[in-house]
Amino acid sequence: VSVLHRFTGTVHTFDWEGAEAHSYQDAGTRGASGLVILSRKDGAHNFVFRYFRVEPGGWTRLEQHSHDHGVMILHGRACVRLGEREVEAGPRDLIYIAPEEEHQLRTVGDEPLGFLCVILPKDDGVQRGTG
Amino acid sequence: VSVLHRFTGTVHTFDWEGAEAHSYQDAGTRGASGLVILSRKDGAHNFVFRYFRVEPGGWTRLEQHSHDHGVMILHGRACVRLGEREVEAGPRDLIYIAPEEEHQLRTVGDEPLGFLCVILPKDDGVQRGTG
Repeated sequence: VSVLHRFTGTVHTFDWEGAEAHSYQDAGTRGASGLVILSRKDGAHNFVFRYFRVEPGGWTRLEQHSHDHGVMILHGRACVRLGEREVEAGPRDLIYIAPEEEHQLRTVGDEPLGFLCVILPKDDGVQRGTG
Repeated sequence: VSVLHRFTGTVHTFDWEGAEAHSYQDAGTRGASGLVILSRKDGAHNFVFRYFRVEPGGWTRLEQHSHDHGVMILHGRACVRLGEREVEAGPRDLIYIAPEEEHQLRTVGDEPLGFLCVILPKDDGVQRGTG
């Protein structure tokens, strides 16, 4: 069944109906938190939509893994590390983070950074395309 | 390799570096057009990010198919048909359109509607998760 997760945030605090906290903070992050907006719980077996927020002066974990990310910046500005490169990105910029590419997002400036991050779900035994 | 598609639009016209027109207009649509922002051309084999714009008074095609969609409204307001239901959605609302659910988006009000639509790529012989 299709599902609507209505946006319930303000310009300063993004949130969605039915979104759940994504446990994310650890020693490798600073001022970063996450929400899972759309997932297998909604019956969505092909992708997961998550929102991450990073406070000014903060960063996400430096990661390198076999899965890829589709990232759209929603608010604020980011310095995005992509392997040996660094690029700056702002609202509505779309970043494809390839498998095995080392990556990290840091907030640039005084506004909190917020971005959408789409990934495939972890293997759940459901064949792709069979819904 | 990771890729940045920088947003190059304005508040009235959304566009991205490297985005390509997605041939979409047909008899079943009105005032609708599409862009492919991120796809297999970027090396992304697990998902496709597309942007659709629907002018005031317009609509997308009424569709029903086996693949699902993750949709985030970027601007304007939509009346979204989901099977027998209709819901209204606005900026940052996230809609999961389940497989086989009949769906159509119509613009509500005087502003053009714009939304991000994530799908799996059509089968390309590349195994999921192998990148």
